[in-house]
Amino acid sequence: MNKVDHIGIAVQSIQDALPFYTEQLGLQCMAIEEVASQKVKVAFLDAHNVKIELLEPLYQDGPIATFLKKRGEGIHHIAFGVSSIQERINDLKEKGIRMIDESPRRGAGGALVAFMHPKSAHGVLYELCEKEDQGER
Amino acid sequence: MNKVDHIGIAVQSIQDALPFYTEQLGLQCMAIEEVASQKVKVAFLDAHNVKIELLEPLYQDGPIATFLKKRGEGIHHIAFGVSSIQERINDLKEKGIRMIDESPRRGAGGALVAFMHPKSAHGVLYELCEKEDQGER
Repeated sequence: MNKVDHIGIAVQSIQDALPFYTEQLGLQCMAIEEVASQKVKVAFLDAHNVKIELLEPLYQDGPIATFLKKRGEGIHHIAFGVSSIQERINDLKEKGIRMIDESPRRGAGGALVAFMHPKSAHGVLYELCEKEDQGER
Repeated sequence: MNKVDHIGIAVQSIQDALPFYTEQLGLQCMAIEEVASQKVKVAFLDAHNVKIELLEPLYQDGPIATFLKKRGEGIHHIAFGVSSIQERINDLKEKGIRMIDESPRRGAGGALVAFMHPKSAHGVLYELCEKEDQGER
């Protein structure tokens, strides 16, 4: 693992949640985009050493929609920045970690991502995330 | 806000959860201590740019015990490192944020801490955390 790249937070509406982050906490919004493969719209906020990723469901049947129905708004996952993501997945599997994604898929910002199963991680949804700019933060 | 200082994670048992973090993820355990005021035992893990704080209830009536009963193990809070914590609390209150702690109290590692109410923060429990070594990470 390199560092924590971002913390993912499920919200009902980015438009409604954004003023808390930008006006009340004073963080800067870096980008907003739609990630069709995960059925979400995401906003990245710059918290200096990590990013905060707000996740809004685009449809009512994606993973974030399901999370919101079950738990309401709140912290969804923690993403570690890695290099050589497939090797890291293989390492974790060898160490007994159950992966949701055994090979990486395309996530926000064009990153390659893979999630560990929370049952292997004491209830936390951890993501591995490999980006071209990895290591620059 | 300076940076994210740590991410707090509720676990049933630090002893049971620690091997996942140290052996499987390869993070280093920096310290384990009891915080009587919050009725928890905490372990800090070094995730390089932030710390991961594992929180185990010492008794069955504290906030972490309640969280575990309601939600099970998982991510509990996000802590921002700040300086001049009382001024930051006052700023946030002026901006309309409801604080759980209107004046700071003593937390893990001797830090001064104050929590925002999740109802003011789209479901996330955010902590402000002021330490003597703030800014060194």
